[in-house]
Amino acid sequence: MRRFILLMLLLGNMTLANAQNAQIQRVNPTNWWVGMKNPNLQLLVYGPNAGTLAYTVNYPGVRLVKTHTVDNPNYAFLDLTVSSTAKPGTLQLVGKRGSQTLTQPFELKARDKSSKGAGVTAADFIYLIMPDRFANGDPANDKFADMADPNADRTNPFYRHGGDLDGAARRINYVKDMGATAIWFTPLLENNQPLTNEGGSMRSAYHGYGFTDHYNIDRRFGGNEAYTSFINKAHAAGLKVVQDAVYNHVGINHWFIKDMPSKDWVHQWPTYTNTSYKQQPITDPHASMIDRKVTVDGWFVPFLPDLNQNNPYVANFLIQHAIWTVEKFGIDAWRVDTYLYNDMPFMNRCNQALMDQYPNILIFGESSVSNVIDQAYYVRNKIDFPFKSNQPGGLDFVLFNAITNNALKQKNREAFPIYETLAQDAVYVDPTKLVTFLDNHDLDRYFSVIGEDYDKYKIGLTWLLTTRGIPSMYYGTEILMKNFKDPSDAEVRRDFPGGFAGDKENKFETAGRTDRENEAFQFVRKLATYRRDNPVMHTGKLMQFLPQDGTYVYFRYDGTKTVMIATNTGDKDISLDTVRFAERMNGFTSARDVMTDATLSDLKLIKLPAKTALVLELRK
Amino acid sequence: MRRFILLMLLLGNMTLANAQNAQIQRVNPTNWWVGMKNPNLQLLVYGPNAGTLAYTVNYPGVRLVKTHTVDNPNYAFLDLTVSSTAKPGTLQLVGKRGSQTLTQPFELKARDKSSKGAGVTAADFIYLIMPDRFANGDPANDKFADMADPNADRTNPFYRHGGDLDGAARRINYVKDMGATAIWFTPLLENNQPLTNEGGSMRSAYHGYGFTDHYNIDRRFGGNEAYTSFINKAHAAGLKVVQDAVYNHVGINHWFIKDMPSKDWVHQWPTYTNTSYKQQPITDPHASMIDRKVTVDGWFVPFLPDLNQNNPYVANFLIQHAIWTVEKFGIDAWRVDTYLYNDMPFMNRCNQALMDQYPNILIFGESSVSNVIDQAYYVRNKIDFPFKSNQPGGLDFVLFNAITNNALKQKNREAFPIYETLAQDAVYVDPTKLVTFLDNHDLDRYFSVIGEDYDKYKIGLTWLLTTRGIPSMYYGTEILMKNFKDPSDAEVRRDFPGGFAGDKENKFETAGRTDRENEAFQFVRKLATYRRDNPVMHTGKLMQFLPQDGTYVYFRYDGTKTVMIATNTGDKDISLDTVRFAERMNGFTSARDVMTDATLSDLKLIKLPAKTALVLELRK
Repeated sequence: MRRFILLMLLLGNMTLANAQNAQIQRVNPTNWWVGMKNPNLQLLVYGPNAGTLAYTVNYPGVRLVKTHTVDNPNYAFLDLTVSSTAKPGTLQLVGKRGSQTLTQPFELKARDKSSKGAGVTAADFIYLIMPDRFANGDPANDKFADMADPNADRTNPFYRHGGDLDGAARRINYVKDMGATAIWFTPLLENNQPLTNEGGSMRSAYHGYGFTDHYNIDRRFGGNEAYTSFINKAHAAGLKVVQDAVYNHVGINHWFIKDMPSKDWVHQWPTYTNTSYKQQPITDPHASMIDRKVTVDGWFVPFLPDLNQNNPYVANFLIQHAIWTVEKFGIDAWRVDTYLYNDMPFMNRCNQALMDQYPNILIFGESSVSNVIDQAYYVRNKIDFPFKSNQPGGLDFVLFNAITNNALKQKNREAFPIYETLAQDAVYVDPTKLVTFLDNHDLDRYFSVIGEDYDKYKIGLTWLLTTRGIPSMYYGTEILMKNFKDPSDAEVRRDFPGGFAGDKENKFETAGRTDRENEAFQFVRKLATYRRDNPVMHTGKLMQFLPQDGTYVYFRYDGTKTVMIATNTGDKDISLDTVRFAERMNGFTSARDVMTDATLSDLKLIKLPAKTALVLELRK
Repeated sequence: MRRFILLMLLLGNMTLANAQNAQIQRVNPTNWWVGMKNPNLQLLVYGPNAGTLAYTVNYPGVRLVKTHTVDNPNYAFLDLTVSSTAKPGTLQLVGKRGSQTLTQPFELKARDKSSKGAGVTAADFIYLIMPDRFANGDPANDKFADMADPNADRTNPFYRHGGDLDGAARRINYVKDMGATAIWFTPLLENNQPLTNEGGSMRSAYHGYGFTDHYNIDRRFGGNEAYTSFINKAHAAGLKVVQDAVYNHVGINHWFIKDMPSKDWVHQWPTYTNTSYKQQPITDPHASMIDRKVTVDGWFVPFLPDLNQNNPYVANFLIQHAIWTVEKFGIDAWRVDTYLYNDMPFMNRCNQALMDQYPNILIFGESSVSNVIDQAYYVRNKIDFPFKSNQPGGLDFVLFNAITNNALKQKNREAFPIYETLAQDAVYVDPTKLVTFLDNHDLDRYFSVIGEDYDKYKIGLTWLLTTRGIPSMYYGTEILMKNFKDPSDAEVRRDFPGGFAGDKENKFETAGRTDRENEAFQFVRKLATYRRDNPVMHTGKLMQFLPQDGTYVYFRYDGTKTVMIATNTGDKDISLDTVRFAERMNGFTSARDVMTDATLSDLKLIKLPAKTALVLELRK
């Protein structure tokens, strides 16, 4: 509320600068490229009185179509077209007002040939890293006295701990060796935000979801250069990179929030209004307009102003930043934060712009919903909703809940909720593009949720790595990192042991891990490697059978291989009669146990001990 | 299993009769009408060697197109066309074999002008009666020594108790006075089935779902004459009648099961196979064929042979019986038992045949499912499923679960599950055609489920009678009848006190009811009457607001009226600030409390005591 009022005050100051000379302090995007599919480009030009200048551009193949001004005279929005004949080079934006003439260089680069928007598919296994908490490569960038949160202190859970891209780059081989094929970082963009105490709960800037400058990776992670370097190394190692996009809001310290282009740059309310965090008003045909508006236009938290994507300049800014990011860094996929709180027509435009330029890119949003209908709404689906999403992927919150809050959490363990969730896949255009998970940086850690039961741990990971979808795993799950969010989110964002100077233990290495941790690591590694190396686990069909007597059996199969996954979540050993699986097992006479390499020479009755998962590659 | 083997033996005897003279013992349908939209009619002709006769028909406007024979020589299937020029009268089926000539009269009646298939809509309120347990009008028909279950004994929960159509007819005014507008009986067709003990659980013939002759109402209910009489009286009183249709199975004693036309008349399995009772394999794109087959083709219970609707003679038999029933009795709507266990293409054909002849008829099936996607599959929906149902209505099991097993059952009462269920209505073509309920003859009684809490009772009934859909109520709920199914279903099918000679109490009358029962009855009556008399409660739009602080508020509204329903399921009194309901309340200055007739002169803050429901008609 306090900050909301502050915004109003800032807005009131907008017209004071009119009499002064104009300056140009920023142009966003900071550069562009020739040869992009879409010839249109809208430059945001910012500086005192930048909106009072008359702009011209004189560069072959580039045309200034229109200059837009807004309430705040410090902004101009320049519509350019960059024709297919334009050559790389630096054009000059010339701005005139009376006797004053300003020139601002703007670079049009040549597109390089490196991979961009290659996509993440069901062939991948994504490893989610919170960069501040994973590994510190450069202690010199842990803190900066000129930033809003100038502290770094590993003993304080709310302060920065110093993890960075250089640290992560040094662990690329660790991630690759474990069997992952892609790395997703929580956001890396500059978050020059203060540490705040909102209603008694500490809000930490290390979290990353409050951008203050879209065109700079945070210095504390190493800046744009470190990101470029990281991605080059990851790509060289065969790992893909997923960027965490945030369209819904920015940090209260974002430079354009401190001097807003117009009042409608963010969603305004008579008094501070938080989102209800409720999905239902969006899809409910009986919903009120006010409930819809609160969900979408309400602010996520007071220090993250909610962008108004119906403002065309906001929309263009966000869309161009997305394209700029993929083009500049060669990002492979795009995870979208708080997807359901965005304006959906905007999201479709933004997704389409990315997919037009990068047809293989995977976009998968975070829509934390409680049922399959609402989940389907935010991806390409087979329901005749009044609004049709074009998003190819999405995080599978319903399956997450089925696994962790139902199948493995409850006393009466049984896989039925998983089975029932997958049985509703008919509503998706392509459920194999859903990104599956057992936990993440906002959730209780998987190993704690399941009561630190190592048998359950293996079962859940087996489901994750063998069922349909694109599996993702939160850093540390492979070494049994644990904790609940209570008393704070920081509990589930503990430092990876060995990632920081002076760590007593180094769990990146075998010698630093306990026997149980090594067992877990090798379990993940073996299963992920098998998954990685066997296309049947990517593109093979899924056939699942009705769970019975605590067992749940399904198959992945294609023309060349058939893999049987059999889990027993119950407390008694089962001798699994396979006669009812004849559709998939006929013709096979033996099997290889993928995890033990043992051979099963009789498939009629399969020994399935209490609380186990079997992954069997069937053989003729 | 025992009975299944019996069927096989019967089938083995089929060819023995070949040498004997032919007889015709049955023709189904038992009659037909001229002037039906579909000119085609397939007669099933049954008797010893009836399939060995060569048939001719000589009747103006009627043509015998083809005679089909099947494995069993005792059956012939005659394809007739009845042209629009055919006149009412009795035609003769002439069958010849060698020197033998048989003639069998078959009546083509004139269609009468009475109402048929008028439909049940959201303007209605359906009262569900189990006829054996409601009221006994004619003690002479309680039992028949020549029937498979020759007993009637009200002291035995598994025996017939003697309720009948005459008894129900005498209570038409009671039902009407209570505010219901339609009566749905559990099935009335002949169930000449024995009382059996299956795996320790008694299976009673009074239940009604095991037909033994499609063309006769059970003698113990009064036969076809009593049904005709009942419907005439009901229609005269302005009440509609819903018939309970069973396509999926028949009784083991059905005459055509005792001498099956062909082995594939019913679903055959190598050993007795029960349905899994699981919905998922039908809609699951990952399902196995065997799981689908077990769900649909598995038998419901051993004494109810599962009809093979892919057999065209079975399909025609069932479809024609449906049409015959509506045409003969003037049924208004059609409740379909165990809908999801039927063959879906057959169901579409059957539904279409009914709707072609009776465009306004409502068909609503029982598909006991656990989620909205599966519920939508069985009705007209907006999901691009591989199969598209044409069923207009359906029983709303998801809303039932939300109300009774979530909102009102749990300790932490809150209406959110109801809100969330309705918020998924976007998947239905017309959710207002769903039939809503709080219990039925197969479920624990509502008043017991909610812990005999009268406050909750009123809240749940208020939701039922004011939200979207066609409400239905199980007999006795209005007088607080209670019980759980444990130890047997008979517990929830207790006799309506006063419906039987010698009853000490007569709860059909005010004097026979306790004060609390009268209060409940008057509650239902007042609310149902208001609903009945106010079109806004039928066709008015629904707008629901996010539940907050234990309150759930929604509106029914149209161009003429706005009704606000506000419930507080919590334990603390609430002063409801109505500012957020402005979309629906702007312009209104006062309200009439529908249940108390009190006037609320200030709508800004509405007093909503703990555990109450308010129904307010807003006024300008």
